[in-house]
Amino acid sequence: MPDPYTAAAVQWAPAYGDLRAGVGRAIEAIDEAAREGASLIVLPEAWLPGYPYWCTEQRPSRAVSALYRELVENGVEVPGPVTDALGEAAERANATVVIGVTERAGGTLYNTLCYIDPDGDLLGAHRKLVPTLSERTVWGMGDGSDLDAYDTPAGRVGGLICYEHFMAPARYALAGLGVEVHASVWPGYPFLHANVDAATRMLAVENACAVVVAREVMSADRLPAGTPFAEHPRMWEMNGGSAIIAPGGKYLAEPVYDDETILYAEIDPADLVEAKRWVDGVGHYSRPDVFRLHWDRSPKPPIATE
Amino acid sequence: MPDPYTAAAVQWAPAYGDLRAGVGRAIEAIDEAAREGASLIVLPEAWLPGYPYWCTEQRPSRAVSALYRELVENGVEVPGPVTDALGEAAERANATVVIGVTERAGGTLYNTLCYIDPDGDLLGAHRKLVPTLSERTVWGMGDGSDLDAYDTPAGRVGGLICYEHFMAPARYALAGLGVEVHASVWPGYPFLHANVDAATRMLAVENACAVVVAREVMSADRLPAGTPFAEHPRMWEMNGGSAIIAPGGKYLAEPVYDDETILYAEIDPADLVEAKRWVDGVGHYSRPDVFRLHWDRSPKPPIATE
Amino acid sequence: MPDPYTAAAVQWAPAYGDLRAGVGRAIEAIDEAAREGASLIVLPEAWLPGYPYWCTEQRPSRAVSALYRELVENGVEVPGPVTDALGEAAERANATVVIGVTERAGGTLYNTLCYIDPDGDLLGAHRKLVPTLSERTVWGMGDGSDLDAYDTPAGRVGGLICYEHFMAPARYALAGLGVEVHASVWPGYPFLHANVDAATRMLAVENACAVVVAREVMSADRLPAGTPFAEHPRMWEMNGGSAIIAPGGKYLAEPVYDDETILYAEIDPADLVEAKRWVDGVGHYSRPDVFRLHWDRSPKPPIATE
Amino acid sequence: MPDPYTAAAVQWAPAYGDLRAGVGRAIEAIDEAAREGASLIVLPEAWLPGYPYWCTEQRPSRAVSALYRELVENGVEVPGPVTDALGEAAERANATVVIGVTERAGGTLYNTLCYIDPDGDLLGAHRKLVPTLSERTVWGMGDGSDLDAYDTPAGRVGGLICYEHFMAPARYALAGLGVEVHASVWPGYPFLHANVDAATRMLAVENACAVVVAREVMSADRLPAGTPFAEHPRMWEMNGGSAIIAPGGKYLAEPVYDDETILYAEIDPADLVEAKRWVDGVGHYSRPDVFRLHWDRSPKPPIATE
Amino acid sequence: MPDPYTAAAVQWAPAYGDLRAGVGRAIEAIDEAAREGASLIVLPEAWLPGYPYWCTEQRPSRAVSALYRELVENGVEVPGPVTDALGEAAERANATVVIGVTERAGGTLYNTLCYIDPDGDLLGAHRKLVPTLSERTVWGMGDGSDLDAYDTPAGRVGGLICYEHFMAPARYALAGLGVEVHASVWPGYPFLHANVDAATRMLAVENACAVVVAREVMSADRLPAGTPFAEHPRMWEMNGGSAIIAPGGKYLAEPVYDDETILYAEIDPADLVEAKRWVDGVGHYSRPDVFRLHWDRSPKPPIATE
Amino acid sequence: MPDPYTAAAVQWAPAYGDLRAGVGRAIEAIDEAAREGASLIVLPEAWLPGYPYWCTEQRPSRAVSALYRELVENGVEVPGPVTDALGEAAERANATVVIGVTERAGGTLYNTLCYIDPDGDLLGAHRKLVPTLSERTVWGMGDGSDLDAYDTPAGRVGGLICYEHFMAPARYALAGLGVEVHASVWPGYPFLHANVDAATRMLAVENACAVVVAREVMSADRLPAGTPFAEHPRMWEMNGGSAIIAPGGKYLAEPVYDDETILYAEIDPADLVEAKRWVDGVGHYSRPDVFRLHWDRSPKPPIATE
Repeated sequence: MPDPYTAAAVQWAPAYGDLRAGVGRAIEAIDEAAREGASLIVLPEAWLPGYPYWCTEQRPSRAVSALYRELVENGVEVPGPVTDALGEAAERANATVVIGVTERAGGTLYNTLCYIDPDGDLLGAHRKLVPTLSERTVWGMGDGSDLDAYDTPAGRVGGLICYEHFMAPARYALAGLGVEVHASVWPGYPFLHANVDAATRMLAVENACAVVVAREVMSADRLPAGTPFAEHPRMWEMNGGSAIIAPGGKYLAEPVYDDETILYAEIDPADLVEAKRWVDGVGHYSRPDVFRLHWDRSPKPPIATE
Repeated sequence: MPDPYTAAAVQWAPAYGDLRAGVGRAIEAIDEAAREGASLIVLPEAWLPGYPYWCTEQRPSRAVSALYRELVENGVEVPGPVTDALGEAAERANATVVIGVTERAGGTLYNTLCYIDPDGDLLGAHRKLVPTLSERTVWGMGDGSDLDAYDTPAGRVGGLICYEHFMAPARYALAGLGVEVHASVWPGYPFLHANVDAATRMLAVENACAVVVAREVMSADRLPAGTPFAEHPRMWEMNGGSAIIAPGGKYLAEPVYDDETILYAEIDPADLVEAKRWVDGVGHYSRPDVFRLHWDRSPKPPIATE
Repeated sequence: MPDPYTAAAVQWAPAYGDLRAGVGRAIEAIDEAAREGASLIVLPEAWLPGYPYWCTEQRPSRAVSALYRELVENGVEVPGPVTDALGEAAERANATVVIGVTERAGGTLYNTLCYIDPDGDLLGAHRKLVPTLSERTVWGMGDGSDLDAYDTPAGRVGGLICYEHFMAPARYALAGLGVEVHASVWPGYPFLHANVDAATRMLAVENACAVVVAREVMSADRLPAGTPFAEHPRMWEMNGGSAIIAPGGKYLAEPVYDDETILYAEIDPADLVEAKRWVDGVGHYSRPDVFRLHWDRSPKPPIATE
Repeated sequence: MPDPYTAAAVQWAPAYGDLRAGVGRAIEAIDEAAREGASLIVLPEAWLPGYPYWCTEQRPSRAVSALYRELVENGVEVPGPVTDALGEAAERANATVVIGVTERAGGTLYNTLCYIDPDGDLLGAHRKLVPTLSERTVWGMGDGSDLDAYDTPAGRVGGLICYEHFMAPARYALAGLGVEVHASVWPGYPFLHANVDAATRMLAVENACAVVVAREVMSADRLPAGTPFAEHPRMWEMNGGSAIIAPGGKYLAEPVYDDETILYAEIDPADLVEAKRWVDGVGHYSRPDVFRLHWDRSPKPPIATE
Repeated sequence: MPDPYTAAAVQWAPAYGDLRAGVGRAIEAIDEAAREGASLIVLPEAWLPGYPYWCTEQRPSRAVSALYRELVENGVEVPGPVTDALGEAAERANATVVIGVTERAGGTLYNTLCYIDPDGDLLGAHRKLVPTLSERTVWGMGDGSDLDAYDTPAGRVGGLICYEHFMAPARYALAGLGVEVHASVWPGYPFLHANVDAATRMLAVENACAVVVAREVMSADRLPAGTPFAEHPRMWEMNGGSAIIAPGGKYLAEPVYDDETILYAEIDPADLVEAKRWVDGVGHYSRPDVFRLHWDRSPKPPIATE
Repeated sequence: MPDPYTAAAVQWAPAYGDLRAGVGRAIEAIDEAAREGASLIVLPEAWLPGYPYWCTEQRPSRAVSALYRELVENGVEVPGPVTDALGEAAERANATVVIGVTERAGGTLYNTLCYIDPDGDLLGAHRKLVPTLSERTVWGMGDGSDLDAYDTPAGRVGGLICYEHFMAPARYALAGLGVEVHASVWPGYPFLHANVDAATRMLAVENACAVVVAREVMSADRLPAGTPFAEHPRMWEMNGGSAIIAPGGKYLAEPVYDDETILYAEIDPADLVEAKRWVDGVGHYSRPDVFRLHWDRSPKPPIATE
């Protein structure tokens, strides 16, 4: 049984619209969490270069086009220089880092969760399978090939992005991968607080794993000067809600709202055993004779060359 | 769009060990809820003839054997006189009734959820797919043929029993059946409160349905004289936790603890629309190209004659 | 070679938000077109109960939720009473009718194109495969099973919805189905005019078919009193652009802007021959040894019962 | 994001039937366009040694045999001295050059589009996949191996030849290659003007790329003395139609007819983003679960030695 | 060893441009040949509804378009009423019939050779693989799936169309199919006489089979009034060249020129043995260790549905 | 395009059974042809030391054994003194020489065609792949490694030996090698005349190349005294049949029978163009998607050391 370890959920505001500054802040957060002894560090959804809260504005306008273009320009190639830089920070921190980015691939953006191990290597990256409502105007859809789990010193790490937590098959797929600690990333919308609380504690029971919930704080006054919609402060008012949950569903670190901070908690892998004694959804608590999930993990390129 | 209606969650103590008395209490509860205008009435898990809290005692003993035998003797045939009697009550109440029973079928007991419509007909009955931990010493396992949903004046009704709520495929199957209001039955264990809260609110988001949570109160002093283990009051100390939740996850009736009562709330089917706008796990929020749940709904008799 | 026939493109404003009135107007348009001798009548995208131009507004608000709920309530079941009523009109008109509707299926809405034959039967219905940008917050995605073509007295009819015209594989699939006259439905956005002109003339060359382009006029003053966003007239200012194109790409009826009218033109099936002499993309102008489109036409239910 | 750059479409008459003179004129055009600052220069289809407008004459005759033989003799080896000479011009111009030639390979001629980079290197050459109608008596068919895109200072360049623009799979293949600026070469037939307009603007939407349309002017009086069919001036009367289109479909330089000229326009790669926000046919606007294009890119020699 | 049988080569002029009359003439020829005892009757290439000698005229003109359209209208569906009618004649004649037709399939015409057995059934039909020169403007290309041989009372019958005889792999494929008597159909061009003589005698050696060569006579004065290009008599002046050759290459019936007639000869299957003693190109005279022909016989639809 | 050149076909009788005399006669023929201006000179099959017409006698006998032994003793090493001597003659003649020999290699004889260039170098030598009928008792079989074509001043030269001309894959392989002039060597059997005529004219169409047919005259009275079977004059009575054919199939020099002579004709490489315009079997007239010839060109030694 591995030893207990410290997990960190970074609830910092992103450097919206400035990828370089954002990477700098990410490294700063990793460094700080490492100083506190964290060996697993999770940063929020689409934190690089910042969650596009303006996606609810879709009336054709120069403002939206400009914001989209800026997002493309600040999009992260995976792998690429940004993941390299984060890899160096992870290696220096000797920690596993999970971070949400807006990935740029061809002409499409994806909402992607990147996994970096303590050697600085990119373990993998998962593209959100179904963006939520107006997010669909910003990000494309991933396929079934990149949802995965990775063995790290903090145990077997997996994760989901925001409303993917409400996709039963996706959660079940992670159970099948044997995830022990789940990186759960979300934006900082206040209206989501109750749902995040339910979904993540529930997940800790159902998948019998620890959960590190990372959500950001944000406000309009943090935007670069001249950002469209900066005059709508409510659009940008986000107040966190990060938390850390033990396998089986108990909060190790209760949700924190409003503060820009990093949450820490000690996760004890030994708790996995008791949690799975109750629910092992792909073992004793399954009924494969009744239910079988077919998961097409093949990449699905629209064009296949021979 | 159907009109709003009143749902009731019956948080009464069972008449443990006395089926006839239990049926009487059930009818009494149905009558009372009907007077309050309820058109959907949910009673807790295995409420007839009472949840076998002694199932955690597994050391071979006369006490356990006697309790089990008593449970068999009080087991409910489905359909049978008990469901007929409940049907009469439902018809009188002009309400849909969902109630948990210990079903007796051949030499095996099942943890079964019965659905009765306002005409008094038994719509169907679902046997718990995987009893939880020590429950497995009492109840057998159902198959995939009886999980279903039923059209009623209160909308399309389905349900799950206790830890079945942590079976992602089972919940997903119900989403596929188009459940609009979910009967969620559990025992009254206090240690489950947080998990029930998470699981049921989460379900109301994920399956975009209303949820009626029925849990019982119980105490050793309610046991018939001479019941084994009656001298262990903590074994029998249950304090409810029933609640009613709107589609999308908001409590319409917050969990009530300790009181022996019936909770009521008005469920507005119109809220289904907004909930499904966010998550329709078998519609716009699904990825059938990636995940497909294969569900074997065929009955699985151990011997098949040809 | 079939005889020339008259096709009609209905460029009427929808009865936004009032399905019953909309069906009445559709029947009125069908009747009028029939009086002019039309045997193929095409109505615009999502014309029942009206294209949701507000889909560009996605900031969580009561207005958007109410509009969405209203759309669900006015959603068309396919098949159902609305298609039955349209079928009666088609039979009376002795015409093939193609009309765009917002379909309601389970908890998800779809942008669906319905085909009704002169006997009044529903030939089929196609759900838009990828809603465009902010449309994704309103409509789900269809699968590959319902894109089809139908033999009618006006020839073999197929169609696409709005930006589906820019999906090369979808167009190619229609070529493979042997479409002779293509129903091309779009909303009335003025900013789309040039693209619609290019896409539809191009299609008439590439797929060597006639094209009937149906687009609506609309304005805020046509909205029912109290409709949210009615105070933003530009959101609702749509000015048509319907047209009819011969196989090979020549306009038979040039695009008409601003007028609320029905366009008519005589389509001569004999022109298909010369068009295909130049381009038969699935015949002499194909290279199946180099390119083969794999089309998965199987329905993709997220849950498959056995 | 790369800087805007100037593209040029050369609408000069070819030096029909005189390869050496034609190469001279090509170099002259490249030099002139370079002086105007063009970094991407596109010349028309089969411009070296001139499009064989006589291909519509196929009655066995000495005239046709002589014209064919002359074309073989003036056919361009790829690579070879002609591409070397053009490479030198491209290097001097510091521009990417795309030019259509009649390629001679073994006993067969091909209608080939050559790509030359600013270092003077031949990037590749694409043989027209299906010659159009009577062109089939002059040119053989390419295979799937040479359709490609190339990274240049002007972005990722690809292209198609004439009616290849109406092959949906070929266009889709280019989308898959990530083409950012598309060289669209055609002969100067006046009857093609409307189709070229539709096809190229449509392409700029569908593939979300810039398009440089190069078409030639020509007339019988430009023919060398004694050329067969010179007495049929209408056979040779071609009047251009070159144009330059922005990603998304707006003309940067409207089609020019009649003038022998070079068109210029500034293409801004930043416009790719907005165009792809609407349509990324191999990304967010694709349905690879429904449609997958199989592209056999292997060369297909009729004889394979082992 | 089967008995000797009489083969017939029909050297009649087609009823150009009149499918119904052509079918009538075909039936008349079959009847006449049957009266002469023929049990294998071969009619020329594209004889229904007449070889399009105008295909050498490809300058865009109303005349060519009209001729093409007329050809489409007179195109033969395979199978269809025409093959049914021919089947009845074949059954009445108790003969195997091989006849060349212009097949209409979707938007493309094919140059197709139909095989009908003495029971009147359509055995198969082969689409010419590569139309010759200007024929490419009229007919599309077949794939590798329909080249076949059929067992008939006259032995195993196969065939090729015109310049397909110069495709070594196609001939070799027929050898592999064990063809015993080869239907060799060509148009009546006088300039082809020497090549037909060489190719067919050579084939009788190489494939060790009998060959029935069917070629038509034709003249402009046989055209329906008003046929375009009727004023060019040389375009239409065709003078036959039919012949019948024994296995091993000896003429059984020397080529006949100018006469409109039916040639007859007795083919003795016993001659196959001696011919194959010398050359069995897929047996003792092969070198499969050195040469192996890969033949892709799969149909190649441009779109494959799943 | 190279200039026309003179080709020669040597129809001299061999010096049967006397290699030294045979080489002398070969040199004499080369000298004579050179004086007539020939730059390509072809001598018949197995001309050194004379075609073994006795190979049809296979009854075990001393006569046959002696003839075989004599043939081995007169067998030609390739390369070796004989090819050196022929090389000197070729260099003196400034001509390309192709000549058939019986090659001795180890314990086996081969029927080999040698190519010598105007510099006197042996370009290559091809062993007959399948000797015909009784020839198999004399010569072994070559492998796929030596069939080749060579660039010479007379163009690209290849060739085949006798019935190899009826091997479709072998001819097709030569087409793939781009042969422009084909050396076609045969014995002088009169019964072959018609087949040689067909095969070689056909080849000139199919491979679009010139063909030089070299066949010998012979008679029993030319045999050395005491040669077995000399008393059977019909066995040795051979009467030539050499000819020269233009690309496309027209005789430049008609077959000459009976005379011991050298035929000459001027071959114009320009005719290749028109021939390939009609048939380029590995270019525009191929279907590599349907047929692909796999040719194993690796030498096949029976023992491979590693």
